[in-house]
Amino acid sequence: MLADGFEIIEAMAPVDILRRSGVDVKTVSITSSLTVVSSHRIKVVADMLLGDGGLDNGDMLVLPGGFPGYENLGKSREVGELLKKYYNSGKFVGAICGAPTVLAKYGVASGRKLTCHRTVIDEMDGYKYVGDPVVTDGNLITGVGAGWSIDFGYALASVLVDDAIIQKLKTGMELI
Amino acid sequence: MLADGFEIIEAMAPVDILRRSGVDVKTVSITSSLTVVSSHRIKVVADMLLGDGGLDNGDMLVLPGGFPGYENLGKSREVGELLKKYYNSGKFVGAICGAPTVLAKYGVASGRKLTCHRTVIDEMDGYKYVGDPVVTDGNLITGVGAGWSIDFGYALASVLVDDAIIQKLKTGMELI
Repeated sequence: MLADGFEIIEAMAPVDILRRSGVDVKTVSITSSLTVVSSHRIKVVADMLLGDGGLDNGDMLVLPGGFPGYENLGKSREVGELLKKYYNSGKFVGAICGAPTVLAKYGVASGRKLTCHRTVIDEMDGYKYVGDPVVTDGNLITGVGAGWSIDFGYALASVLVDDAIIQKLKTGMELI
Repeated sequence: MLADGFEIIEAMAPVDILRRSGVDVKTVSITSSLTVVSSHRIKVVADMLLGDGGLDNGDMLVLPGGFPGYENLGKSREVGELLKKYYNSGKFVGAICGAPTVLAKYGVASGRKLTCHRTVIDEMDGYKYVGDPVVTDGNLITGVGAGWSIDFGYALASVLVDDAIIQKLKTGMELI
């Protein structure tokens, strides 16, 4: 889900790693324009608009952070509804940096262990905050911030594809 | 420098980190279109075209990898000329993954210590290959592959801005 002000590494490392894994990924602009602008002024052309619909059948919804991107995601009722639908039906939800606040705003995944950026910990009442860089608890996967975007991407991929694929990708990306 | 087939993390982590550092960064499409497509099908709108000119006064030139992005960079004589001009006048040059082969193709920085993706080591005759994830030797900064893009971005920033800024950024990105 891409809103204006998204963090480019937090958004694109997951897209890259998931596509390398063979997962069918759609980048979705939540605005009325396919072109979205990152928090550091990088323009990306999304694959589709949230308003195009047809997103009910995915396996995972991913919310990147970045300021004011995560606030813009939080302001979207459509994002909130989709998030509830995904999480409550047992599908995977990923959120990194400031984006876990969108969960809190819509009362999604309450009680779960998670991580988030240090600047938004106070907004995460009702969750079990843990300080790890990446946390997977059930169908919720969270990351702490931009510096851990690649690890977050691998955590997302590892619940969708076999470990043999992950190991091959890590070799290709020179991580092992 | 963005050619079709560039690696999105290798290209954008440096842009993000350098802009966070306060450096004036221009993303430059080497094609005739501002819109370039990454090796994993992400469309990015560059700030300018290489053909617009006016790039002689920069402080650093950065070449991302990605296939066939790095090969497309290597095929561009304009990129080769700019690379020589930057390196030979003591300006910084950064290259990651497959992109160090562009140096080899244009005979730039011969004899320097560097790193590169394992699949292109054979093409780096005349350089001192070392296996580190990121290597700085004089005005040449190289990275091994996509998994180390953030470290590569910090290596680029650290030759342009003070360590106090780097430490602040690393805190913001939750790395420290």
